[in-house]
Amino acid sequence: MKKEFTINDILSFNDRYRATFINSIGGFKSVALIGTKSKDMGSNLAVFNSLFHIGANPPLIGFVIRPNSVERHTLRNILETGEFTLNHLNENIYKQAHQTAARYPKQISEFDATHLTEEYKAGFPAPFVKESHIKLGASFVQKIEIQENGTILIISKIKYVELPSNCLGTDGFVDIEQAGSITCSGLDSYHSTNKIARLSYPKVNSIAAEI
Amino acid sequence: MKKEFTINDILSFNDRYRATFINSIGGFKSVALIGTKSKDMGSNLAVFNSLFHIGANPPLIGFVIRPNSVERHTLRNILETGEFTLNHLNENIYKQAHQTAARYPKQISEFDATHLTEEYKAGFPAPFVKESHIKLGASFVQKIEIQENGTILIISKIKYVELPSNCLGTDGFVDIEQAGSITCSGLDSYHSTNKIARLSYPKVNSIAAEI
Repeated sequence: MKKEFTINDILSFNDRYRATFINSIGGFKSVALIGTKSKDMGSNLAVFNSLFHIGANPPLIGFVIRPNSVERHTLRNILETGEFTLNHLNENIYKQAHQTAARYPKQISEFDATHLTEEYKAGFPAPFVKESHIKLGASFVQKIEIQENGTILIISKIKYVELPSNCLGTDGFVDIEQAGSITCSGLDSYHSTNKIARLSYPKVNSIAAEI
Repeated sequence: MKKEFTINDILSFNDRYRATFINSIGGFKSVALIGTKSKDMGSNLAVFNSLFHIGANPPLIGFVIRPNSVERHTLRNILETGEFTLNHLNENIYKQAHQTAARYPKQISEFDATHLTEEYKAGFPAPFVKESHIKLGASFVQKIEIQENGTILIISKIKYVELPSNCLGTDGFVDIEQAGSITCSGLDSYHSTNKIARLSYPKVNSIAAEI
């Protein structure tokens, strides 16, 4: 049995139901902890599930921030210092990662509140998450405001990557499943993955095959 | 053992290696087939793995297009007609979905080339993919060019949703895992999922728990 919803159905949902519904229908999402430092050196950590690949050369990644939410501390810190970290979630830390979305006041670091460990390296002023297996350092490139709803797209350049050496293939593929990275759906559902297959480069005169 | 890469390491990779590497380090991604129709009524289907949630009210979704790739047909059609469909992948159609990325000439529909079935409904001029289990109809809102690499962000409004009725929870959560939707990593790796847990709304004075 199928169920259909028109735009009028969707707009008639109550706010919480609509947020839950719309957040889950786009598909599984990239989820990561963003670590930042404020100008007065306080650390901040927040979970984001709207990361997207923009390009490889230069290496660019984007994500969405709602400026009126707990995410405002992350936004302010990125604009103040220009740098931040992206840390993959795994099964050992997803509950703590989710908990960083609680409305902690500015003077409380989510690292302390959730018992995740700050790690500093590679000259980055922003904190990495020690318990994460894949960690990226990035710097701010551009801020784009979406007029329709006031959210902000942050475009950033990847400047540093750390990963388990046994997860890197000879062709540059990083096996994030082997690294234990997980995905999420909606606002609060976390999922591990099972590789189905990698497929060959698609060409007009042959059918993509498993590699 | 960990491996570290600086921006200079990343820029020194060859192009194919860098594309494979950077595409996989951001995390698991939303992947969907975008169906469009040109002004002269030819249909087009292309796989995209850069979809991201922007907001629920109004329901907005974004994705990235590289205008110099096979994706240019999708871009042209969306700008010409203003409407398109988003269709989740599942294990039965992921090979065909991947194959839509081959460089078929404009006069060949990827539906024909990959034996996926066009489906028209809900007044949408653009084709849905019959074999997909979760289908969205969307209309164009805004086009944003990213100066750094010439890619284009398409911002769009969700106007129609179809899903299996047994996948919709009482709180609006759509269980896309139960619907058979899959995720991807990098340019060519497809993965099914295993739910770990849904977690309660995070609050400062309690720890997020399974719901």
